[in-house]
Amino acid sequence: MKAYCGHIIYTPTSLAFEILPKGYVVVNDRGIIQGVYASDKYPYGNEIEVVDLGNQLLIPAMNDLHVHAPQFANMGIAMDVPLLLWLNKYTFPEEAKFADIEYARTIYTQFVDELVKQGTMRAAVFATIHTPATLLLADLFHQKGIGAHIGLVAMDRNSPDNLCNSVDEAIEGTNELLAHTKNYPLVNAIITPRFVPSCSPQMLRALSKQAKDRHLSIQSHLCETTNEINWVMELEPEALSYADVYHRYGLLTHDTLMAHCVYPSDIDMGLLQQTGTTIVHCPTSNCNLASGIAPIRRLLEAGIPVTLGSDVAAGHDLSMFQVMQSAIQMSKLNSAIHKRQVSALSLSEVFYMATKLGGSFFGKVGSFEVGYEFDALVIDNDSPMHDSIYNSDTLYTRLERFVYHGNVYQIKKRYCQGKEILIK
Amino acid sequence: MKAYCGHIIYTPTSLAFEILPKGYVVVNDRGIIQGVYASDKYPYGNEIEVVDLGNQLLIPAMNDLHVHAPQFANMGIAMDVPLLLWLNKYTFPEEAKFADIEYARTIYTQFVDELVKQGTMRAAVFATIHTPATLLLADLFHQKGIGAHIGLVAMDRNSPDNLCNSVDEAIEGTNELLAHTKNYPLVNAIITPRFVPSCSPQMLRALSKQAKDRHLSIQSHLCETTNEINWVMELEPEALSYADVYHRYGLLTHDTLMAHCVYPSDIDMGLLQQTGTTIVHCPTSNCNLASGIAPIRRLLEAGIPVTLGSDVAAGHDLSMFQVMQSAIQMSKLNSAIHKRQVSALSLSEVFYMATKLGGSFFGKVGSFEVGYEFDALVIDNDSPMHDSIYNSDTLYTRLERFVYHGNVYQIKKRYCQGKEILIK
Repeated sequence: MKAYCGHIIYTPTSLAFEILPKGYVVVNDRGIIQGVYASDKYPYGNEIEVVDLGNQLLIPAMNDLHVHAPQFANMGIAMDVPLLLWLNKYTFPEEAKFADIEYARTIYTQFVDELVKQGTMRAAVFATIHTPATLLLADLFHQKGIGAHIGLVAMDRNSPDNLCNSVDEAIEGTNELLAHTKNYPLVNAIITPRFVPSCSPQMLRALSKQAKDRHLSIQSHLCETTNEINWVMELEPEALSYADVYHRYGLLTHDTLMAHCVYPSDIDMGLLQQTGTTIVHCPTSNCNLASGIAPIRRLLEAGIPVTLGSDVAAGHDLSMFQVMQSAIQMSKLNSAIHKRQVSALSLSEVFYMATKLGGSFFGKVGSFEVGYEFDALVIDNDSPMHDSIYNSDTLYTRLERFVYHGNVYQIKKRYCQGKEILIK
Repeated sequence: MKAYCGHIIYTPTSLAFEILPKGYVVVNDRGIIQGVYASDKYPYGNEIEVVDLGNQLLIPAMNDLHVHAPQFANMGIAMDVPLLLWLNKYTFPEEAKFADIEYARTIYTQFVDELVKQGTMRAAVFATIHTPATLLLADLFHQKGIGAHIGLVAMDRNSPDNLCNSVDEAIEGTNELLAHTKNYPLVNAIITPRFVPSCSPQMLRALSKQAKDRHLSIQSHLCETTNEINWVMELEPEALSYADVYHRYGLLTHDTLMAHCVYPSDIDMGLLQQTGTTIVHCPTSNCNLASGIAPIRRLLEAGIPVTLGSDVAAGHDLSMFQVMQSAIQMSKLNSAIHKRQVSALSLSEVFYMATKLGGSFFGKVGSFEVGYEFDALVIDNDSPMHDSIYNSDTLYTRLERFVYHGNVYQIKKRYCQGKEILIK
């Protein structure tokens, strides 16, 4: 057992922050939280070690629920080119390089290092169609000691030849990944049809069966742009909507993550609600690709869970703090566009999305409550102006300041399941 | 004379970057550029010193054309509160503190240091109504060796009592500032009515006369929100539009900067065109305050000059690179909203706004052309992936990557008018 004493900030619900100035989080040797205490309620004496974090903030670590690891080398570039050129000149050729295991090692190592540096301890990741590189990515997460759902990408139509796999290859690849990660406690496989246009009905059917048989989560893309939706409806004329295509194959479940959802129809909304599917909001990506503003308040009001993703390399940065910031800003623009009839997202709402809700895909992760795994960040952004004054107001202010213009150098420690994860 | 040899990138026009791999900029002892040469066209030999910047980028320094120095302590906080509460609980009480010269010294020193750190070498700044603190701010810019137009803010109505000055006080304060900065080559006064709601007709008239008599630039706010516009039209019922209020008092000129312009009417557009007024686009601020998306493409197509501002503390960061990024992103959302009928801003367009166009308010500043002052940044963001390959494509990519997720630690040197400016 060990106690961490610092300015504790977390979101048990999306409505408000719980803030404990110089509070204590007690963690057992398996990395599970045993108790959380306000400063004057700490029940232990000298019998357990106390790690005193001084005047630093202690917050849950970040979870990134949508990110393309093989696009890491393209992060922050080719932002001015139109979508088709972006895919064909930058994205697909880059992904094709992951047939080369040494190239994969170079980029995936940098990717995992950068995730950790930015404070992200768990991620739902798209890899590529290449099994060896995908197994390697799992190794790298495991060696680093952070968590991931890793998806061997399935795509068998409307894609470059060198980026297509067959149904058998896709199923077999994920089976290999499952076998390979059997003894990796924090790393798992996730069923990953790229999106409807690149997956045949046979592929979707086989993936759905594999998800059921092996009890796996599922991730894909949904309603990112209007052109894409029109294309899906041409490809699948019998479907009632984009989401309905996934639904017909049993791919919308409580364990499904669908990225984007910028333009959901009422039918899509109903299916998401009914199936308990989670939407991964990727605001920086939606800006950079000029997709549009996702109707997050409408999704939340319909009871659809919404979490956050960096969507690198359409998103330009792995920092989930930047993603939070962007989510709030886009919701404010949406509010302005709708003449204040739609309320903007609050800081506690987006923080909850990136911590407790995102974390729920990895077990009891993302909050400081009894029974949760201790995934945490220690933040040092004290400023001379706030010297020695700490109460809920000033600590909230420090967190907000960090979200809006903090940097990785202010993240002093990172923990995943109770273990400190070091950066390079 | 001295020559700087590095990967030179700048925007002589908004249409495209000029990129010179391992090119040369030759600067005389007064900090003025004497020549710019491609690698194989350099005409000098050993007779002048060459500063070899290796594989680093050399770009023009940033210019911030709208920023509130006294709000620096509020940067990145209180982003969730509604506008009126934001003004009354955070902004106005903070500005009132600048009656205390020691408080002003603390915050203004940090502000100027942070501007330099972020690579901004010239700024158009709102101070407060307080003359001593405003003179001090001018001293700090001068001592640091960077440029500024500094505005003693004029406000005599609809504002807290402790933040109002009389017409005489406002005029006299600017006269003092002019006398005080007479021997500061890079620092000047700028006429600064806060905005129409806080300035009486007498105030606007007197400020306009002072601007004419003393040949000064003018800065204020225009059409930031619809509520503000309605308020202005109630206060000034005879005016044809918001801009027309300024115009009637002769405050729209070739040397006028108007921040925001999110909701210009056709009449506003016509007056801006006719007078040659420059708009300062503040995209991060327009997001954070839920003001809306400014119609920048429409302004540009009407021939209205548009530059960029951080608008701290409504903007959450002094980095003009973040402001550029946000300007592009908002223009892409605007494009999506208008079904691609409005084109998004390109990287060269926003770079030009923050360098050559913004710089034009401070003399020949913001470009690497003969006769321009050498305001420059040296950027080291080489990555192992791009090792030793440099051509226009890879250098463009490096610049783009820096704009989207560079950081201040990658800015290795900063120059203003030929002199290196050190950070703390």
